[in-house]
Amino acid sequence: MTLSIGMLGYRFMGKAHSNAFSRLSMFFPDAPDIERDVLVGRDEDALADAADRLGFARTATDWREVVDEVDVFYNLGPNDVHVEPSVAALEAGVPVLSEKPLAATLDGAERMAEAAAEADVPTAVAFNYRYVPAIQHAKQLIDEGAIGEIHHVRANYLQDWLVDPQAPWSWRNSEEIAGSGALGDLGAHSIDLAQYLLGDSIERVSGHLKTFVEERPVPGADGGGLDAESGDSVETRPVTVDDAYSAQAEFANGAMGTFEASRFANGQKNAHTIAINGSDGSLRFDLERLNELEVLRDDGRGFETVLVTDPDDPYLDHWWPPGHVLGWEHTFVHEDYEFLSAVAEGESYGPNFADGLAVQRVLDAIERSDESGRWVEV
Amino acid sequence: MTLSIGMLGYRFMGKAHSNAFSRLSMFFPDAPDIERDVLVGRDEDALADAADRLGFARTATDWREVVDEVDVFYNLGPNDVHVEPSVAALEAGVPVLSEKPLAATLDGAERMAEAAAEADVPTAVAFNYRYVPAIQHAKQLIDEGAIGEIHHVRANYLQDWLVDPQAPWSWRNSEEIAGSGALGDLGAHSIDLAQYLLGDSIERVSGHLKTFVEERPVPGADGGGLDAESGDSVETRPVTVDDAYSAQAEFANGAMGTFEASRFANGQKNAHTIAINGSDGSLRFDLERLNELEVLRDDGRGFETVLVTDPDDPYLDHWWPPGHVLGWEHTFVHEDYEFLSAVAEGESYGPNFADGLAVQRVLDAIERSDESGRWVEV
Amino acid sequence: MTLSIGMLGYRFMGKAHSNAFSRLSMFFPDAPDIERDVLVGRDEDALADAADRLGFARTATDWREVVDEVDVFYNLGPNDVHVEPSVAALEAGVPVLSEKPLAATLDGAERMAEAAAEADVPTAVAFNYRYVPAIQHAKQLIDEGAIGEIHHVRANYLQDWLVDPQAPWSWRNSEEIAGSGALGDLGAHSIDLAQYLLGDSIERVSGHLKTFVEERPVPGADGGGLDAESGDSVETRPVTVDDAYSAQAEFANGAMGTFEASRFANGQKNAHTIAINGSDGSLRFDLERLNELEVLRDDGRGFETVLVTDPDDPYLDHWWPPGHVLGWEHTFVHEDYEFLSAVAEGESYGPNFADGLAVQRVLDAIERSDESGRWVEV
Amino acid sequence: MTLSIGMLGYRFMGKAHSNAFSRLSMFFPDAPDIERDVLVGRDEDALADAADRLGFARTATDWREVVDEVDVFYNLGPNDVHVEPSVAALEAGVPVLSEKPLAATLDGAERMAEAAAEADVPTAVAFNYRYVPAIQHAKQLIDEGAIGEIHHVRANYLQDWLVDPQAPWSWRNSEEIAGSGALGDLGAHSIDLAQYLLGDSIERVSGHLKTFVEERPVPGADGGGLDAESGDSVETRPVTVDDAYSAQAEFANGAMGTFEASRFANGQKNAHTIAINGSDGSLRFDLERLNELEVLRDDGRGFETVLVTDPDDPYLDHWWPPGHVLGWEHTFVHEDYEFLSAVAEGESYGPNFADGLAVQRVLDAIERSDESGRWVEV
Repeated sequence: MTLSIGMLGYRFMGKAHSNAFSRLSMFFPDAPDIERDVLVGRDEDALADAADRLGFARTATDWREVVDEVDVFYNLGPNDVHVEPSVAALEAGVPVLSEKPLAATLDGAERMAEAAAEADVPTAVAFNYRYVPAIQHAKQLIDEGAIGEIHHVRANYLQDWLVDPQAPWSWRNSEEIAGSGALGDLGAHSIDLAQYLLGDSIERVSGHLKTFVEERPVPGADGGGLDAESGDSVETRPVTVDDAYSAQAEFANGAMGTFEASRFANGQKNAHTIAINGSDGSLRFDLERLNELEVLRDDGRGFETVLVTDPDDPYLDHWWPPGHVLGWEHTFVHEDYEFLSAVAEGESYGPNFADGLAVQRVLDAIERSDESGRWVEV
Repeated sequence: MTLSIGMLGYRFMGKAHSNAFSRLSMFFPDAPDIERDVLVGRDEDALADAADRLGFARTATDWREVVDEVDVFYNLGPNDVHVEPSVAALEAGVPVLSEKPLAATLDGAERMAEAAAEADVPTAVAFNYRYVPAIQHAKQLIDEGAIGEIHHVRANYLQDWLVDPQAPWSWRNSEEIAGSGALGDLGAHSIDLAQYLLGDSIERVSGHLKTFVEERPVPGADGGGLDAESGDSVETRPVTVDDAYSAQAEFANGAMGTFEASRFANGQKNAHTIAINGSDGSLRFDLERLNELEVLRDDGRGFETVLVTDPDDPYLDHWWPPGHVLGWEHTFVHEDYEFLSAVAEGESYGPNFADGLAVQRVLDAIERSDESGRWVEV
Repeated sequence: MTLSIGMLGYRFMGKAHSNAFSRLSMFFPDAPDIERDVLVGRDEDALADAADRLGFARTATDWREVVDEVDVFYNLGPNDVHVEPSVAALEAGVPVLSEKPLAATLDGAERMAEAAAEADVPTAVAFNYRYVPAIQHAKQLIDEGAIGEIHHVRANYLQDWLVDPQAPWSWRNSEEIAGSGALGDLGAHSIDLAQYLLGDSIERVSGHLKTFVEERPVPGADGGGLDAESGDSVETRPVTVDDAYSAQAEFANGAMGTFEASRFANGQKNAHTIAINGSDGSLRFDLERLNELEVLRDDGRGFETVLVTDPDDPYLDHWWPPGHVLGWEHTFVHEDYEFLSAVAEGESYGPNFADGLAVQRVLDAIERSDESGRWVEV
Repeated sequence: MTLSIGMLGYRFMGKAHSNAFSRLSMFFPDAPDIERDVLVGRDEDALADAADRLGFARTATDWREVVDEVDVFYNLGPNDVHVEPSVAALEAGVPVLSEKPLAATLDGAERMAEAAAEADVPTAVAFNYRYVPAIQHAKQLIDEGAIGEIHHVRANYLQDWLVDPQAPWSWRNSEEIAGSGALGDLGAHSIDLAQYLLGDSIERVSGHLKTFVEERPVPGADGGGLDAESGDSVETRPVTVDDAYSAQAEFANGAMGTFEASRFANGQKNAHTIAINGSDGSLRFDLERLNELEVLRDDGRGFETVLVTDPDDPYLDHWWPPGHVLGWEHTFVHEDYEFLSAVAEGESYGPNFADGLAVQRVLDAIERSDESGRWVEV
């Protein structure tokens, strides 16, 4: 059997998943056979170009026409187009992978999770950082009890691409399209990782959102009016989402959590860090050094820097000898391998839409807390 | 003129300051001459021993008898004895250095600050980490505008000495004596550093306090009943303070702050870290590597690891050539040099009791927030 | 035009290059079209399997039959089979990429370089670490004069896969097949990088080779006799190459070099490090953190940790946004892109067989020095 | 009994030891009582000043007059004045501590070691880095067999204070006074540490010495002629020692060693690093982070960063609680405590003049190797 894939979106995430598809046969020989069937987008020229580069057989400008023609549907569009196409695909019995956060709004996420519950097919929300080998190794250590009862988790996701007030406006600055800013884009990853690694859920939160720059220039020709002298865009659009958020959390089992994400953390490009302290050990991870996990063992005196590239480390037997490090993109190969295998074998899969909704509820609680100035139950 | 010093307390902090006193003449030849006059405590034997070791000429078991006999009074006792002796000394016109936090309660801190305001003499609250050369260097960089407008500060202070539930009860676990736990002991340092470095004050906070272990064994003979078989203490006392706290903060100028301290952060011995992100650069510091400051410069591409040991770095011309690193204790030498010089010359000094009160107000706001479940104005 | 590729060898390096071939069209759209034509090996079953997995159209068990049928020949076999097939291909006018070191012996390397000189086609020796973006960035900085006149280079390559005396014998332990051990396998990379980055050549060396374990068990069925009780192999073969080497070097322009490689450096998996000190700055690199370059700038106070993932960093515009790190395998994509482009456009390419020979002369000088106990001119 | 101390030299090392003396009573109560008796130097004014600051009771401008009047003699002068005063003191039965290297020449070192052998009193050569707690901990681990049989040691000592060609000439640039340059000043430490930690001796070496800048300006008034326009010194003196050295070594038990030191390693202030790889583990140390030891344990997967500040770490019970880091100067307190205790109790002490001579033989062999271009037996 060959799984035909339909994919909505062909930019950053489209490239990441297409690359992953193209590598399965060489590195995961037991992965299902797949066919990059149809690429969906609105701009016909760009779409044709992308289909060619990303190896898709055909294109479509209306997802309605194709969601029921494929065996798997990848929804990689902006957050505000996650709901309709995903629900339609599920209603047609087609398994769906959606990029994160699950939706721009809690309502949307609930609709998606309901559709998933009704459809008897696997769904996936693309929390790809679960598939970093070091994170998988951390999960194993926690599940084995190697770090004992967990007292603390702190998860930050720091970037700096908006620190310049002249950095251009994009859909990621629009509440309408994105739902939220750093919170949904980056915080969703942190919150998912924390709940996943601890095997525990956040019960209540106190949140804080902040927009440092209230409007940004609109780039390029679309922007229209350019300043006669400088040639700079004179049109701006309002930033209606957070540039940064922080949150405090309490988990069901009593662990304390602190969270933060920012697009204004000067000098940090993609510093998704998570630290966990337990009664018998601790763990630390930084995405900028994604092959490493720092481990404090019960009989240890300090953090051990483990290069997670041994053959018996998660997924590593598929790749290279010890010390030959992987990159960011490998997380997509692992993710798509697991999801497509689940689809092919009709097995359940996680993180699925229910997991995506669980994260969305925390995102929503953080926003509500920021508005009310109170701790909020999730 | 020789300044005679009276000192209440002779354990950890007593040793730290006595060491500092003994080093001034060799390394800070322009420091005022001092005389270690009288050491104050309750246990006569231990006191005599300490006076001998720490170089004090005489001892006293009642501070009332000596606070007006000395030129400077160092109050290094537990938090609940900061108020009375300090106020008495100030009323006698004697300059006072108090260990941090300023007091066990906000009321106490206010009384101390009032007494300081009325007395026309210098006071000091022992936020010694301001005197780490790397922190002084950070302050210079910020004041010069090297990192621009500040968006983020995150300050954590992680230790692990209570992670074992059998770690013995001490006064630091008592609300009555200590006021609070990790919050006042460790958080006070973080909050002072943040306000000092930013030159800005925290306006509102959301706080979270947690006690992971509710009671602890009482060590030694005082504990009385020992288990017949194991010889373990069977008496326990309740832990009435926080083992850990976290807080979110907003500064007057709009910066976001996150704070955390814990005595349960397994694997961290004294990890007092502070990271600051500005529009033009960033800074990172970790007390466990106290000779280093990580600096992102405006024209930089990543953090530069600066060994703050050059002759023109703060205080370094008093010590050793470049690369010959200082230790934790040097902060006390710098602190006592500055405070005693201010006393000798009748100049003002900071951080003083007003600064200590400013921190105490934040500590209090964090506790109130934890109780009310709301953001609280400082 | 589509370039047909013949490839000898299908294990570690075969997989690395096949993966690279398969990624060119998506990430380097201007790369020449290629066809994975014929895979060459001796074991027909394994070969068929590999061809299927690596995407080759056909197989051959005798390289003689195919070297003149392809547009490019990749020689990825053990060191002792580098010479004949490469020379034959060159004599047929076919461009050749050879894995490193160029040959098992200096004689062999000279024959290859002569054949390359006579053939008017590009050749390549697979010093893939030149294609790490951080190394390319280092080269740019050096060439711009950012670190000034170079005084020191130290290049180590530390692994630990032979530290267990029971680690099995392989061809890499045989002088006949491999030529040398850590020296040729790892040292060749260090020496090439040093000469490449400095733009300078090593003039004289003092070398030291060491074999810590003199014989190793032969694994598997070939080994024959197994111990009746333990089931362990009782057959061993002698280790006739070095487990580790060190060298001191002097460059033409006066820089001092130190080199070391080992398969006994416990705890180091693939720690290929190079540090360079110049009159105006310094650089440090570690392959285990291959996305980072540590840079001391002329106006700097310490090493800046640069994440070499910006769009204007070498090759990075082909991949992902800043902070989304690359892996070890990407070096092969860059290498094959450059070599195949040179082949397609009939341009010259480096590192070529002449560069491989230059390294081989240093390897040979190090061995001669070890034997003679004297410094040796290259 | 109180030990009276005579000390020749009052600059860098004089200050370091005087500071150590002044701290013994508070931190090492069982140390012998000492009296800083007489300070020896040539410049009367500077000497009087120093005696005052360093706490010496009296001064002398001729060591001959005082070496037999004290209980212990500290020889902290330039290398060329180590021999005569030390031998005279020993002949008078006075224990001597000499700064390192033991002497400017092998002959001198031999004379000192002979005098020590004849005198029945303790001697010391001031290899203070043996007294870093992390190094002591490393020694314990090695002696316990925690890292097994040792295969590799690499010890570098990198500084950069001469990288500027205009850095002024000093006695450290003179062969006559210093004996050698980076080799004797820095390399002596590395070689001693390596032999000490391994409990093994270097049998043969290959050395390389280099002088990058052949002459340097003479600073200040002594230099005489200043350039009329620039005011720069126009007098220069030749640099007659090495700016940097490297060496390869073979130990008696078969371990390979590599060594390097430089005053031209731009960006490194005091980077004395040592790495040791054994069959069961590895160790790494860097003086710039002197409270840390990196340890690969037998059952470990990577290096553990151990903060060597626990109460049962070497000497740490004398200082502060865990995580309150020590500085460079503490090594002198430990060293003087051990040496003066040995003197007071008439016990033997190491590292003594015999150990100093052992290092000097290696230094000499490295120089002979550099001259002859051959490996040289120690």
